[in-house]
Amino acid sequence: MESWFTENQSEGVKFSIKVKNHIFSGKSNFQKIDVYDTDGFGTVLVIDDCIMCTEKDEFIYHEMITHIPMAVNPEIKNILIIGGGDGGAVRELIRYNTVESIDVVEIDELVVKVSKQYLTFTADSFSDKRVKVIINDGVNFVKKLDNEYDLIIIDSTDPIGPGEGLFTTDFYKDCYRALREEGILINQNESPYYINNAKEMIRAHQKQKSIFNISLLYQYMIPTYGSGYWFFGFSSKKFHPVNDIRKDRWSEFHLKTRYYNTDVHKAAFILPNYVKESLETGEYYFKQK
Amino acid sequence: MESWFTENQSEGVKFSIKVKNHIFSGKSNFQKIDVYDTDGFGTVLVIDDCIMCTEKDEFIYHEMITHIPMAVNPEIKNILIIGGGDGGAVRELIRYNTVESIDVVEIDELVVKVSKQYLTFTADSFSDKRVKVIINDGVNFVKKLDNEYDLIIIDSTDPIGPGEGLFTTDFYKDCYRALREEGILINQNESPYYINNAKEMIRAHQKQKSIFNISLLYQYMIPTYGSGYWFFGFSSKKFHPVNDIRKDRWSEFHLKTRYYNTDVHKAAFILPNYVKESLETGEYYFKQK
Repeated sequence: MESWFTENQSEGVKFSIKVKNHIFSGKSNFQKIDVYDTDGFGTVLVIDDCIMCTEKDEFIYHEMITHIPMAVNPEIKNILIIGGGDGGAVRELIRYNTVESIDVVEIDELVVKVSKQYLTFTADSFSDKRVKVIINDGVNFVKKLDNEYDLIIIDSTDPIGPGEGLFTTDFYKDCYRALREEGILINQNESPYYINNAKEMIRAHQKQKSIFNISLLYQYMIPTYGSGYWFFGFSSKKFHPVNDIRKDRWSEFHLKTRYYNTDVHKAAFILPNYVKESLETGEYYFKQK
Repeated sequence: MESWFTENQSEGVKFSIKVKNHIFSGKSNFQKIDVYDTDGFGTVLVIDDCIMCTEKDEFIYHEMITHIPMAVNPEIKNILIIGGGDGGAVRELIRYNTVESIDVVEIDELVVKVSKQYLTFTADSFSDKRVKVIINDGVNFVKKLDNEYDLIIIDSTDPIGPGEGLFTTDFYKDCYRALREEGILINQNESPYYINNAKEMIRAHQKQKSIFNISLLYQYMIPTYGSGYWFFGFSSKKFHPVNDIRKDRWSEFHLKTRYYNTDVHKAAFILPNYVKESLETGEYYFKQK
């Protein structure tokens, strides 16, 4: 008998992938966690019935959330990741020999545990000596910080459940204070196509713009997230993500990347009219019936 | 009872949308044609169980298939569209008062008929006086031509069924001959993510490169096609799609577009490493289990 995992990507939209084995299912205090083995996508991590990460295309997400800030400021030394319990962002960051410390503040210990067991392609990175995993609520963690990090990455789920506090103005203000003068904030910033994602995308961007000197969104194309068309936010006190890119310095790291390159970096900030318009007006672009 | 339309996007991958009404179902000599009314995507045209065009996002496809060549050569006057029986490409092209004629060679009369009845948002364009709809096989039609068009658009389905002949070397050679010295060929060039599409993408591109002086692929993000990440081919005898863009001249047309702008134009040709690599090696990028 065939077995399928189905995600409700939006009202009236379903995405289904064929499953070979349902290799883990568990519940933490925060969320439901499942791991599937599939022919089409390799190992797949699912949280609260949403695909978080597939072996096939997680590199797109993890390269774009890390190399963009690193190419803008290759002097980044101390990094805070909030969420990111799968280890994918860490894997990309430990490739920089200039990085000195990476603190991963993950609210859900079970995500880390499950990733270490089943998602070794991302979570093996946790064994690097510069990495410290702290099981804590990111919202509380940043409240006490002042001028401590060069880069904060909010590698979160959607703003439902434990991810909710990571989309608030107070939290972004705490991140601002936790960053040094040259600090950069990167956040998972949703998608413009389906209304549930688009409203959060607009809202989060408006909040960041009101706090940071520079705040822009950039796109990446990841087929296993609803619509395939997703965004990160780049906010900073000082650096412009495109004008200040240090292309030559970044090339000196000699990193072989599968998605990212410095041309893709610049192009990622160039948005289609419908996305620009919805960010300018603050309204969902498409008519709802 | 809920009703859903499901597309098998690849082996082990299904995409389903909730349907309000199944408003048309018919079979021509070439293919099965269905039209659905949906809350999420408006009217949806489906051919052989694949989504061809939805009211919500067809503008992405139709703007990118037309404005890219028009911005490179704003002097385009005589256009041939092969396929395109829904009228969406025509709708964008008749906005240029400089365009003198558009011949639409569609193999399947039923596509035109159904589009005129149910997809008025694209097919109303057929009433423009410069447009001639010719019911004929595009492969045969181009055999007789020499130096006749400034632009040929292959607005085809996948290379299965009636679309198959539109992906052959002989056909591309005929298109080359049918084009004038400043001619441009644009074709629906599939997608790099699922193996079924990726193999055709690579193959079609290799054929075009062997015939045209300039041949490059460009991307657009359309959520209702499998993976959401699709490509058109730009081939020409003379013009480079990025270096020869006539940004100022294009702006003088004062066209309000929903996806396309001249920055998106340039960015569309900047490809992630995995896509570049698969085009260079001629191999599907992802491991298959």
